[in-house]
Amino acid sequence: MKRPAETPLAASLPATVPFVGPEALERQRGQTFAARIGANESVFGPSPKVIAAIRDAADQAWMYGDPENWDLRHALAENLGIKPDEVVVGEGIDGLLGYLVRLYIGPGDTVVTSDGAYPTFNYHVAGFGGDLIKVPYVDDKEDPASLLDAARAQGAKLIYLANPDNPMGSWHDATKIEAMIADLPDGCLLLLDEAYVEFAPAGAVPTVDISDPRVVRMRTFSKAHGMAGLRVGYAFGEAGVIRGFEKIRNHFGMNRISQIAALAALADTSWVGEVRRKVEEARVHIGEIAASNGLTALPSATNFVTLDCGRDAAFAKAVLDELVAGNIFVRMPFASPGNRCIRVSAGTPADLAAFAEILPQALDRARGG
Amino acid sequence: MKRPAETPLAASLPATVPFVGPEALERQRGQTFAARIGANESVFGPSPKVIAAIRDAADQAWMYGDPENWDLRHALAENLGIKPDEVVVGEGIDGLLGYLVRLYIGPGDTVVTSDGAYPTFNYHVAGFGGDLIKVPYVDDKEDPASLLDAARAQGAKLIYLANPDNPMGSWHDATKIEAMIADLPDGCLLLLDEAYVEFAPAGAVPTVDISDPRVVRMRTFSKAHGMAGLRVGYAFGEAGVIRGFEKIRNHFGMNRISQIAALAALADTSWVGEVRRKVEEARVHIGEIAASNGLTALPSATNFVTLDCGRDAAFAKAVLDELVAGNIFVRMPFASPGNRCIRVSAGTPADLAAFAEILPQALDRARGG
Repeated sequence: MKRPAETPLAASLPATVPFVGPEALERQRGQTFAARIGANESVFGPSPKVIAAIRDAADQAWMYGDPENWDLRHALAENLGIKPDEVVVGEGIDGLLGYLVRLYIGPGDTVVTSDGAYPTFNYHVAGFGGDLIKVPYVDDKEDPASLLDAARAQGAKLIYLANPDNPMGSWHDATKIEAMIADLPDGCLLLLDEAYVEFAPAGAVPTVDISDPRVVRMRTFSKAHGMAGLRVGYAFGEAGVIRGFEKIRNHFGMNRISQIAALAALADTSWVGEVRRKVEEARVHIGEIAASNGLTALPSATNFVTLDCGRDAAFAKAVLDELVAGNIFVRMPFASPGNRCIRVSAGTPADLAAFAEILPQALDRARGG
Repeated sequence: MKRPAETPLAASLPATVPFVGPEALERQRGQTFAARIGANESVFGPSPKVIAAIRDAADQAWMYGDPENWDLRHALAENLGIKPDEVVVGEGIDGLLGYLVRLYIGPGDTVVTSDGAYPTFNYHVAGFGGDLIKVPYVDDKEDPASLLDAARAQGAKLIYLANPDNPMGSWHDATKIEAMIADLPDGCLLLLDEAYVEFAPAGAVPTVDISDPRVVRMRTFSKAHGMAGLRVGYAFGEAGVIRGFEKIRNHFGMNRISQIAALAALADTSWVGEVRRKVEEARVHIGEIAASNGLTALPSATNFVTLDCGRDAAFAKAVLDELVAGNIFVRMPFASPGNRCIRVSAGTPADLAAFAEILPQALDRARGG
């Protein structure tokens, strides 16, 4: 009996996972992390009103979710000041990234991103056979000029830019992003990942004409709303571009309870403000812990702080490994020069106390002390 | 500014939805259905232990789910008597169908299914550019002989078969499926959709060698477990075939609360039996309602009953429309000859009382009375 053959593209792909989950690390180590501050989840949780909504909706689990995400799209559109057919809801930004890449990228198509930017985007580009060009960060920021130059030189169809950025926590002013959009090459789409937008300072969120078909923005309930486990993201842009998702998305893919929870999150207008305040406190605290250990906290417009360990990637990796061995889940940037750093998500005071306790010894051991 | 161009394949696809959701019909009509018995959801709900697990887990919503679905895969493997790397968990069977088609089917590849079988499978085949061959049902059953003949004649890479079948409710004995597998053409994969397997009579579930790379089976928590809204399906088969999913799936796509709920569902070993009993009662009741209205209930191995309206597709459609107008959500098969029927999901006694009340007048009006 002959083994069925995958497509040539599928056969060429590695069996991979963009990130190892903290649960896998816990299983390897036989121990639960004392602080889960590595995946930029919101330790402050979802709004109590969201938790109540989930509990109230539990007995609705037998019903499929509305495949049109009608109520949620309408609520999002109202919040964004756009029309409901200018927004599509999906299984987190990760799911929407896959759909967008599938719509626009096939073998022979070129995509531009920054070296060290979101690996899951790269995973999808590879998965649909695109050629990925990576340009370096400049001053720990994704660099619009380099991205545009590469896109122009290579005839790219798609550019990825996160603002604010993950994993460096940096950001650009709105004017810079707006200028980038004005300068997009013909036929090139800008994917603006705004997963961390709720943490961005005033002046960092661009104004984009919703009728411009060259820009798709993506946001999520996973970060400021504290709902990473519920998988709700959304993309918005020109109606014709957004309609494309209807051709390929998993129409019945949305969890009904997640739909209800996301509506409850939008209805609670005070929670994100409270989270922002706690995140700001945590960022200050992480900065203090870093400074007292001789590390440099990079400026952050997100719910994490990237700490420059002051030496090379091998050293940062050693620090990371010692922190994990000390029961603290953190991560680090994958590419140079960001990989001189470790990345610490905003934690509760207890999380950060655990981090502060382990860090000196982790640094000491990483230094071979 | 030039509009970005979708891939030629994406551009060729219609913006479509495999099924219109009941919520869309409710919005059109400005009224909530009195009986939601059209999508083969389990009106008997999930186990009370599942509901309790969801409520308990609500405050974990801030954490991503385990991307490896470790606990759930291990529990499923134990139940199935296979190894954990022989099963993959995904966002419902719908999501897994998309992944499987993506792994094996591209432009120029041929796929065989039955005319009137699951539209969402067809949607995925079209979405990845495959050529779909449809063979007729025989005696209201998907016909293994026709499927094999077509696959052999067309050099198909993939055959879809649901056992028990949706939308007809029919089934094949295990021996027939086993013979079909023995007779698969070289290089052809059989996708065995077992969404309704928990309702199948004894002797209808084939024994398949898990090391046979030519068969992938899919099951779900959406039907007997009453968790359609939570989007948990799984595929199992030979480890190398299952490993393929790791190359393309949305690793962080699973909802954490759904993972926990599915584990709770597996731990409650009595609930599915109770659901089966209630479904059996409902099937008998639907049969009685049908008979007293001059309709023929087809035999069912599922949680729905397909009712032969005794005339043509236009008549069945008229009956369906009248039922919907009468506030009863039901559906009907899409293709001839199944489309002489309407399909009624197992309902609560109240659901079926509402159905019984409206049906005579719906038939009367459909007859032009």
